Amino acid sequence: MTELTTTRLPRGFRAAGVACGIKDGRTPDLGLLVCDAPATTSAARFTRSGTQSAPVLLCRERCDLGGIRAVVVNSGNANAATGLPGLDDAAEMQGAAARAVGLEPESVAVASTGVIGVPLPVDRVRAGIESAAAQLRDDGEADFADAIRTTDAFPKRASVEVSLRGGPVRLSAQAKGAGMISPGFATLLCFVQSDAAMSAETCDLLLGVTVKRSFERVSVDGQLSTSDTVVLQCSGESGVAIDPETEDELRFGEALDSVLRRLALQLVRDGEGARRVGRVVVRGGDPEAVESVARSVANSALVKTALYGGDPNWGRIVQAVGMTLPGTAPLPVDVTIEGVSVCSRGAAVPHDPAALAAAVAREEVEYEVGLPGEGAETELFFSDLGHDYVSLNAEYTT
Amino acid sequence: MTELTTTRLPRGFRAAGVACGIKDGRTPDLGLLVCDAPATTSAARFTRSGTQSAPVLLCRERCDLGGIRAVVVNSGNANAATGLPGLDDAAEMQGAAARAVGLEPESVAVASTGVIGVPLPVDRVRAGIESAAAQLRDDGEADFADAIRTTDAFPKRASVEVSLRGGPVRLSAQAKGAGMISPGFATLLCFVQSDAAMSAETCDLLLGVTVKRSFERVSVDGQLSTSDTVVLQCSGESGVAIDPETEDELRFGEALDSVLRRLALQLVRDGEGARRVGRVVVRGGDPEAVESVARSVANSALVKTALYGGDPNWGRIVQAVGMTLPGTAPLPVDVTIEGVSVCSRGAAVPHDPAALAAAVAREEVEYEVGLPGEGAETELFFSDLGHDYVSLNAEYTT
Repeated sequence: MTELTTTRLPRGFRAAGVACGIKDGRTPDLGLLVCDAPATTSAARFTRSGTQSAPVLLCRERCDLGGIRAVVVNSGNANAATGLPGLDDAAEMQGAAARAVGLEPESVAVASTGVIGVPLPVDRVRAGIESAAAQLRDDGEADFADAIRTTDAFPKRASVEVSLRGGPVRLSAQAKGAGMISPGFATLLCFVQSDAAMSAETCDLLLGVTVKRSFERVSVDGQLSTSDTVVLQCSGESGVAIDPETEDELRFGEALDSVLRRLALQLVRDGEGARRVGRVVVRGGDPEAVESVARSVANSALVKTALYGGDPNWGRIVQAVGMTLPGTAPLPVDVTIEGVSVCSRGAAVPHDPAALAAAVAREEVEYEVGLPGEGAETELFFSDLGHDYVSLNAEYTT
Repeated sequence: MTELTTTRLPRGFRAAGVACGIKDGRTPDLGLLVCDAPATTSAARFTRSGTQSAPVLLCRERCDLGGIRAVVVNSGNANAATGLPGLDDAAEMQGAAARAVGLEPESVAVASTGVIGVPLPVDRVRAGIESAAAQLRDDGEADFADAIRTTDAFPKRASVEVSLRGGPVRLSAQAKGAGMISPGFATLLCFVQSDAAMSAETCDLLLGVTVKRSFERVSVDGQLSTSDTVVLQCSGESGVAIDPETEDELRFGEALDSVLRRLALQLVRDGEGARRVGRVVVRGGDPEAVESVARSVANSALVKTALYGGDPNWGRIVQAVGMTLPGTAPLPVDVTIEGVSVCSRGAAVPHDPAALAAAVAREEVEYEVGLPGEGAETELFFSDLGHDYVSLNAEYTT
């Protein structure tokens, strides 16, 4: 697998990003991405929220999710909690994009991200779609990635080439994140393109597995979004086919995994106001306990503020563990921070506080938690909680 | 029920608070409270955490919880995650208090609050106990309440008189809170005294019911503590007996309820760095959904920062609701803020944004959430999330 720095999309894809006036009229806020290959296959995943945005509801009900040819995305407005008028607006957005690129509406996926509860200015969106359709280019990836940002400090992209039996295939992906990011599936917008040829079933299988290992393993603020959408599209234009249960499927899956994990980590690193990244690894005998402890640690306001402050306050790790496992006291929990054992079988372990303080002042801090038993293990990446998160979310309507 | 401003404890009780040197040597950090009546009855509740502090484990295993005569409490060190040596220290603290006031160890409850994972300086505690025992006074309540504080900005006390059939009885309570406060039973330290006479069973019944309606309905940071302890002691020294299933039991229960709810609200108001208090009321047909939605809203970092910023960002309420009810989309949720309907059946309702902005800038903000169905209702009080919470928890080891 080779990393690429190009903004040229895999064969068969074109994209554009424009400012349509949802934001300030200058900042890009509408992205359009089209696959020109009629045999495109695809798969998608959406937020599990009970209050899904109109575009998510529309995609689930009115898209051919195995044959998505185009995606149209706006930022600055989530079109969520907008009721039936919001669904009409999402359908209007889908129809306008379909007309602009000459496709059937059901082959166009729609996504919106931004403030919740405000009607979508659909006239501006329609004009933006026409403008974007006129600007579609095979090197339009950077513009597209820029247009889907909300509070993201930087655009998130990744592009790789994978050598398969039949030749090389390309894989590109663009994501946005920043806030309302929580493990629990699909916690953001992410669009992935490949020129490999594969069935929609293979698309779905590979996307399902790799999303679980990437976007489900990160948390910024423990808040599941209304709008999370991940779409994988394969144009087949490389001429390289990926068949089920082959070495090629495995290699392509590994590349997809690597790309999505990289983007997921970028989301954490660019969590709203984030300064440091925490990685918690939990091991034990009960898979459910291992998972809930990892989430409890990653979402603890006390752990996150300690991470922000560079404070080796491991007592808060113990507290977060105990909180999620009622009825187990006294729990023989082990805690290791950056390789330094600080708590063994529930009791403090003498250690050099200065060395530990230096270790937790680094950009990434690893916490290992040991529960009773063996055989289950999980990890979660999480951002810290600092003044900039408070400022961003208290002073601006995001 | 009459509120009292006195710091004189109910008949039969004496208390003291001293500085024993766990903190800086000047700040009070050890409290002792004793009931001189041999017929004292009592009840207690403890944190559900799996990583309970040594004092909690000790109380559960080595106290006669229906006959607690004395409580000894230190602040500045939680004696949690301290293993077997921590248990020995807690037992030593219990024994020293028992000797100092001439009681059996099993009638002395122990509580510790402060930093987790640091050995308790038990020699200082022992000396502090002797000093406190020499200073026990029937008007020592303020000193005791002061000594149990950690990051609390102000001491939390309440004192009332209730007129019963057989005459007046007194009820006093002292609490500490600030951080690691979450609904889910017993989320703090709270000590309650009365000179009413009642069985230990009645104590237990009344304490169980009123704790559910007070400390279980508040959240500062969604973090369940290792150390939560609530103790109710009744000296019987008023000569007024409270029998089961009587009008007097009801009236006393109401007074206890009122006192504990007032202290619980003080905890929220004094949540670490808190500026505003939110009250979320959730109604619907499914009691479990109603409870989980209330917790999701109260613990959302996005809702809490909006409350801090005085931002009427009701989209975050909708998001928090949807997050906790996966598989229900599109959920017809209603949201009302300070009486203004902003979302009806999942769709935005036009309203005056200036009036709403003014309403959410008040000291207390009420959010009402309507889910489908009828018959279930709950409420939660929560503090906001602001810069002072970050500073307190990032810059200090608390």
